Amino acid sequence: MRDIAVFSGSAHPELAEEICAQLEVPLRPVRVERFANDCLEVQLQANCRERDVFLIQPLVAPVQENLVELLLMLDAARGASAARTTVVLPHYAYARSDKKDAPRISIGARLVADLLVSAGASRVLAMTLHSPQVHGFFSVPVDHLHALRELAAYFSRLDLSNAVVVSPDLGNAKEASHFARLLNVPVAAGAKQRFADDKVTISDIIGEVEDRDVIVLDDEIAKGSTVIELLDRLRERDARSIRVACTHGLFAAGALRRIGEQPDVIEIVCTNTVPVPGGERTPKLTVLSIAPALAEAMRRIHNGESVSALFDSP
Amino acid sequence: MRDIAVFSGSAHPELAEEICAQLEVPLRPVRVERFANDCLEVQLQANCRERDVFLIQPLVAPVQENLVELLLMLDAARGASAARTTVVLPHYAYARSDKKDAPRISIGARLVADLLVSAGASRVLAMTLHSPQVHGFFSVPVDHLHALRELAAYFSRLDLSNAVVVSPDLGNAKEASHFARLLNVPVAAGAKQRFADDKVTISDIIGEVEDRDVIVLDDEIAKGSTVIELLDRLRERDARSIRVACTHGLFAAGALRRIGEQPDVIEIVCTNTVPVPGGERTPKLTVLSIAPALAEAMRRIHNGESVSALFDSP
Amino acid sequence: MRDIAVFSGSAHPELAEEICAQLEVPLRPVRVERFANDCLEVQLQANCRERDVFLIQPLVAPVQENLVELLLMLDAARGASAARTTVVLPHYAYARSDKKDAPRISIGARLVADLLVSAGASRVLAMTLHSPQVHGFFSVPVDHLHALRELAAYFSRLDLSNAVVVSPDLGNAKEASHFARLLNVPVAAGAKQRFADDKVTISDIIGEVEDRDVIVLDDEIAKGSTVIELLDRLRERDARSIRVACTHGLFAAGALRRIGEQPDVIEIVCTNTVPVPGGERTPKLTVLSIAPALAEAMRRIHNGESVSALFDSP
Amino acid sequence: MRDIAVFSGSAHPELAEEICAQLEVPLRPVRVERFANDCLEVQLQANCRERDVFLIQPLVAPVQENLVELLLMLDAARGASAARTTVVLPHYAYARSDKKDAPRISIGARLVADLLVSAGASRVLAMTLHSPQVHGFFSVPVDHLHALRELAAYFSRLDLSNAVVVSPDLGNAKEASHFARLLNVPVAAGAKQRFADDKVTISDIIGEVEDRDVIVLDDEIAKGSTVIELLDRLRERDARSIRVACTHGLFAAGALRRIGEQPDVIEIVCTNTVPVPGGERTPKLTVLSIAPALAEAMRRIHNGESVSALFDSP
Amino acid sequence: MRDIAVFSGSAHPELAEEICAQLEVPLRPVRVERFANDCLEVQLQANCRERDVFLIQPLVAPVQENLVELLLMLDAARGASAARTTVVLPHYAYARSDKKDAPRISIGARLVADLLVSAGASRVLAMTLHSPQVHGFFSVPVDHLHALRELAAYFSRLDLSNAVVVSPDLGNAKEASHFARLLNVPVAAGAKQRFADDKVTISDIIGEVEDRDVIVLDDEIAKGSTVIELLDRLRERDARSIRVACTHGLFAAGALRRIGEQPDVIEIVCTNTVPVPGGERTPKLTVLSIAPALAEAMRRIHNGESVSALFDSP
Amino acid sequence: MRDIAVFSGSAHPELAEEICAQLEVPLRPVRVERFANDCLEVQLQANCRERDVFLIQPLVAPVQENLVELLLMLDAARGASAARTTVVLPHYAYARSDKKDAPRISIGARLVADLLVSAGASRVLAMTLHSPQVHGFFSVPVDHLHALRELAAYFSRLDLSNAVVVSPDLGNAKEASHFARLLNVPVAAGAKQRFADDKVTISDIIGEVEDRDVIVLDDEIAKGSTVIELLDRLRERDARSIRVACTHGLFAAGALRRIGEQPDVIEIVCTNTVPVPGGERTPKLTVLSIAPALAEAMRRIHNGESVSALFDSP
Repeated sequence: MRDIAVFSGSAHPELAEEICAQLEVPLRPVRVERFANDCLEVQLQANCRERDVFLIQPLVAPVQENLVELLLMLDAARGASAARTTVVLPHYAYARSDKKDAPRISIGARLVADLLVSAGASRVLAMTLHSPQVHGFFSVPVDHLHALRELAAYFSRLDLSNAVVVSPDLGNAKEASHFARLLNVPVAAGAKQRFADDKVTISDIIGEVEDRDVIVLDDEIAKGSTVIELLDRLRERDARSIRVACTHGLFAAGALRRIGEQPDVIEIVCTNTVPVPGGERTPKLTVLSIAPALAEAMRRIHNGESVSALFDSP
Repeated sequence: MRDIAVFSGSAHPELAEEICAQLEVPLRPVRVERFANDCLEVQLQANCRERDVFLIQPLVAPVQENLVELLLMLDAARGASAARTTVVLPHYAYARSDKKDAPRISIGARLVADLLVSAGASRVLAMTLHSPQVHGFFSVPVDHLHALRELAAYFSRLDLSNAVVVSPDLGNAKEASHFARLLNVPVAAGAKQRFADDKVTISDIIGEVEDRDVIVLDDEIAKGSTVIELLDRLRERDARSIRVACTHGLFAAGALRRIGEQPDVIEIVCTNTVPVPGGERTPKLTVLSIAPALAEAMRRIHNGESVSALFDSP
Repeated sequence: MRDIAVFSGSAHPELAEEICAQLEVPLRPVRVERFANDCLEVQLQANCRERDVFLIQPLVAPVQENLVELLLMLDAARGASAARTTVVLPHYAYARSDKKDAPRISIGARLVADLLVSAGASRVLAMTLHSPQVHGFFSVPVDHLHALRELAAYFSRLDLSNAVVVSPDLGNAKEASHFARLLNVPVAAGAKQRFADDKVTISDIIGEVEDRDVIVLDDEIAKGSTVIELLDRLRERDARSIRVACTHGLFAAGALRRIGEQPDVIEIVCTNTVPVPGGERTPKLTVLSIAPALAEAMRRIHNGESVSALFDSP
Repeated sequence: MRDIAVFSGSAHPELAEEICAQLEVPLRPVRVERFANDCLEVQLQANCRERDVFLIQPLVAPVQENLVELLLMLDAARGASAARTTVVLPHYAYARSDKKDAPRISIGARLVADLLVSAGASRVLAMTLHSPQVHGFFSVPVDHLHALRELAAYFSRLDLSNAVVVSPDLGNAKEASHFARLLNVPVAAGAKQRFADDKVTISDIIGEVEDRDVIVLDDEIAKGSTVIELLDRLRERDARSIRVACTHGLFAAGALRRIGEQPDVIEIVCTNTVPVPGGERTPKLTVLSIAPALAEAMRRIHNGESVSALFDSP
Repeated sequence: MRDIAVFSGSAHPELAEEICAQLEVPLRPVRVERFANDCLEVQLQANCRERDVFLIQPLVAPVQENLVELLLMLDAARGASAARTTVVLPHYAYARSDKKDAPRISIGARLVADLLVSAGASRVLAMTLHSPQVHGFFSVPVDHLHALRELAAYFSRLDLSNAVVVSPDLGNAKEASHFARLLNVPVAAGAKQRFADDKVTISDIIGEVEDRDVIVLDDEIAKGSTVIELLDRLRERDARSIRVACTHGLFAAGALRRIGEQPDVIEIVCTNTVPVPGGERTPKLTVLSIAPALAEAMRRIHNGESVSALFDSP
Repeated sequence: MRDIAVFSGSAHPELAEEICAQLEVPLRPVRVERFANDCLEVQLQANCRERDVFLIQPLVAPVQENLVELLLMLDAARGASAARTTVVLPHYAYARSDKKDAPRISIGARLVADLLVSAGASRVLAMTLHSPQVHGFFSVPVDHLHALRELAAYFSRLDLSNAVVVSPDLGNAKEASHFARLLNVPVAAGAKQRFADDKVTISDIIGEVEDRDVIVLDDEIAKGSTVIELLDRLRERDARSIRVACTHGLFAAGALRRIGEQPDVIEIVCTNTVPVPGGERTPKLTVLSIAPALAEAMRRIHNGESVSALFDSP
């Protein structure tokens, strides 16, 4: 079989290092030069010819820098005769721009998918896309993983006899429901409805939360407004304890601090699909690694083994 | 300006006739021949050269026949040197196949979008797509209309002092909310959650429905199971009267008869995006015409006027 | 080498079973679901990742259903990371729509070729295309087989001392000539000329047929009008016996019964590129299997061996 | 309407001049420079911006020079912001390479069609393509003219009371039949059959030719072997007089002289789709101009009027 | 004619305002929203349907932000049914990445050209590209302007009786030579040779500079190292006075201050293709506006008039 | 690994033979037929299926014949199911047409690159492209070799104690500088400046040449005007001896004879990227073979080994 060659962009080298350690392959060096006119030039510093190349780059802030860097890496791999180039996107931030809910706006999720293919992506390995339809925006094969297995393994160490999984909204409820089945606990959901662009109202919580040990599960937490609002609803309904879990812990605009300061939040759990923002650590935070899951998926992609067998049908 | 030339496939010629009457242009004839080997051949029987061609074809049963016929019409228009070919899709049935929720399945909504473009579609005029992300599956411009204006005009003749609009699920709640604003009445929603492929559970209704005159609003009714289930919930909560409204009245598998037989359902209202199935008429059914709306959109597309100004931002 | 994975659509599963038996590989299961709105969803129920996938589907009635099903299978195989997807088209019905002989008509043979590629076909294995130019409509490699070897093996068991091969028209005469060489008998041909769309005239038969044992050879028999007309000409010229042979035995509109009822037709021979229509069997019919030929071609395609060496240059 | 801009390559400037005279527009100058390394550079020497550009170039010998020159002209027009570029191909020599009748050969007719589109052709205006399937090789609209009207006008000055149109083979018989209808005379055809690559046999002539004034009609005459052979058959059957007509008078390898030297050939008539080879003139030759037909088609293409109305359905 | 609609990205709104003033059309508003996850969303806030849209955005620092914003604007214009979208690139920073001078590096100039087309650019209006080959990287038409006319008009107010134009290297000498002809003065050039990646050597100055009033002309000044080095050479050769002129005044890393501090530099002249960096103004700096030139080119593009007539062949 | 299959077009079969001898693989036969109408048909006469195909064809005179032949070979290889097709372009003549320096001209270097890809090229192996930007015109991977190693090995047999390498212009000076480093001698350069289309002026020579043994190095010599002019400059500066070296010895228009007749030119050295023109041999000419270099690059491409490691970074 062709050899594997793994490279990382600037967005999250720690994750790439960890994946390579799991795969027992070296992380190949990349030179990124910024010229006086602010343009970037990328050099992949290991032979790519006929190799099975993987480029690891979550689209986190600075998103535009990381995106263009990734596009340049794809171009370099194509020019260097890579046999196949897989973009490993632990976090696809533009997935949220998936519809045209106002006239004359961009649909970033589709555009960026097209740009990646135009620059040379042969396939994509993504994690917990914001909406499942985003899969269909790519014209190349996508393997779409979830972090539920990792989160469930972590929470199963707790006494879950009185626990309930709560999804902040019904859009994420299917995933929450699957997560609850993994933990063998019931599920509930906030009935969040965004009636206007600037006003989010959570009308209700569906399911039992009173006197329960709540595990809030969301796909990502950015500013955290939804979670903060859900906490109010949970308090009104006398939840016994609250833990917050998500795949993508973006924690923008002080979200980690704000949630961490809520006294009834016992613990915040996320994965390392994105780097934890510096200077915002709270002792309540636990970061689980999804490097083993990504590494296993990459190994299976490389070997032509089924990825769906393990991950796709939670 | 280039002249307009409107053609209809076999799916819904009555709607096409009505649209052309509104536009005060003739509906141009199409010859569809079926050969002994079951292949179709399409001839557009009016000059298309440098014309602004519109092909009207909702994807209703028999969907595959209607789809291939539409693709052949597109090919014929391209070969006949149409300046621009707009597919008018009053109903895009494949929009429901918008995600990959099992391994190795087709994503029909993206595939059919690509096929239409491959066959020559310059743009698409769609109505009430099942999910807004489907817009992004097309690589050509899409104008996406809603029928709320027509439905609201119809219901505003009623005494709405005690009315409430109810969406069967929260996925459709944004549209229901807008509809309610048009009628100046409150909104409620079923918190439908599909926890498994074969089991649909409506956990709850969010909002006040007791003793209210309910207008159930959904985007489409196919087998009608969701609506039937919602009726049970509404009865449990003592709704005063029930009307059922939707854009796409597919009414498959006897749905029209089944809903019509519910004694507390006063009225069923849909539009003519799809033909009403023969032999299933009930006196409770009212079919509103969206021909004027489609005609106006086509007129604006033809003239290069803003479509969003009228329709996009309800 | 990558493993092979063979799937069949709904058009002709018996042929697919037979091919797989020849190849000694399992026929992998396919789930085709039809939703309430008449849309199809396809799931390939075996791992396709990095596999050499073959999809077997002759385009027979219902052609549109079978075509869209095939397109969805292609999309599923692409999304499932097939290394290569070969469409096995034992009968390509749309091949007859290969020219624009009237203004503003579709050229179905080119359109469907483009749709197959757009949906993900890497290559095509076809059998006895109606005109050789159709090969050029595909932008992917095509292997084009003929069934003459199978037909010749069957007829060589007869006493051919007095036989002649007759092509109904000169368009098919090159193939008839090759067939005659395989049998070591002379060839003759009807000089069919289609002077208008609705009138077929066979002016003449070129070559000796009097007192001969005639083997009529055509590429396909659909309604059978041409063959029936040829029989009249053969009778006028006192042919001694008549056998009818073709590759694609579509036998539409009672053709099998009508030809079988001709008393001087001793035997009708076709292959199983298409299923024989139910309820029309006649004891005069013999169906030869082309499964071994297709299986051998697939084996060679899979192994990268020359296909032309065996089949292309009869 | 956008202005028209007509340019000619080096292949046949006389025809281009004549077309422009008909259209009453100037023929715009083109500079073709050949560098020391034998590369060509083309400069279109008139403003093309937003113009409706027509490039006139029959693919005649030297075919490769003329083809590459045409591709460079297309590239120049695209770079110069032409609104639309129509290739006027009075003779498409590569149309004969339309099938794969041996393994591993090029299909030139499809390849060159793709190259023209790749270089920027928006549409094609062709004349008497060798086989009608070649139309389908183009992915852009094609207008396909015939010269029958011009030829018929010429022959109708003769006493046709005893005339018959003879097609050298049945492949061209449909066109001959239409031509005969225009002249109101009967039709006959040679039953030419090419049983091997190197042997052409005309088995028979179908229809009455004895004591008739024969007009042989073919699409093109290159080396003229088929016509010479047909003349032998006609003599055997005691034709009274012979005239030879074709659209494309290539007359390669002394064909014009050889046919002209046949004493019973009264007249040879062709059109000016290709230049008549120098030094081969015979007093028997009459060259009809198709410039008016091409000019009228170009006028209609430019104005968006139906071309098929006049030419497509003879 | 279709109406014009001009929008500006965030890179240089002052230039866009000035261009619109010249064109006497309004600059249409654009809403650029940055979400919590650092993704951008663009809304073009004026009707684009069938309009002739121009998007003005020089690729200056922050280049990646400005590039992705431009791509999103293109996507929005395409989705909003623009008839044509012209990217106005007063400065194309990535043009310098035009070759592969090390293994496995990106060729940014080609990649970004492809990305712009992939996102929907119909054409490009560029100014003083770093190398003329970059023109060929675009697969859409490019209009390529120069600022020499503007610079020459400015300098012609001086006493030029003793002046000489000096190009810092021979790569730019053709442009300098043309500039000198416009001013009717002689030309000279530094023979700059970059023998290694990190060492720039100017071996010589070709032409007379002693006791002359020197006008140094370069296409762009970024860090200014080349100009500083040239000044040393000019001093060694006793130039009488020195003025520095360029099209793109990037002035990165304090270049403006550094050059301005050279006592024998009388004046620095650039154009406003890029914004002058804040906090670096020197009284020696004069900024000429190329807004009139860009506006005139846009007017001609919109009207389908020749652009080359005015600008291309200096 | 897939087998290799090497074919040669008509341009330079001797080179192809030599390469194959180096690779120890057979040169596979190609049949090129020219029909009566001057069209070409290509047949690759060895199995290509799943093979790693290499097509060797320098674009030398007759360039258009050789280009179209190469495009047909690419088409044949694609149709014959080649796994990968590499175009080996020892000389890419159209590389000189790399910019648009006049309005409405073709950019042949980009067009031909696109045509090659359109016809089926998977990758390109090129040698000493005229400008490094041409690399970016290809949308497929390019391996770009130089012949400096071969030239240096040859000259190192001389006494170089007094030698200097002279580049005729500064555009080629980087390569000359590298060549000089390989020989451990100094470098000089003509400061050629082409101020107008029809006038070439060499203003100066930069660096020491007096009393030196000069080795003139250029990438290609076509008409040789530049070299002849440089010789005058060298004589004015009293060079001691002169040798002339280049990669591509096109020697058009008697260039070989003209240079050879200069009495102070001791030797002319080129490589066999192109055939030496017949009838122009001079005893001063030495032709070095680059077949070993091309063969080694092809071997590495076939085996997926780094090519840049050896050749790219001189």
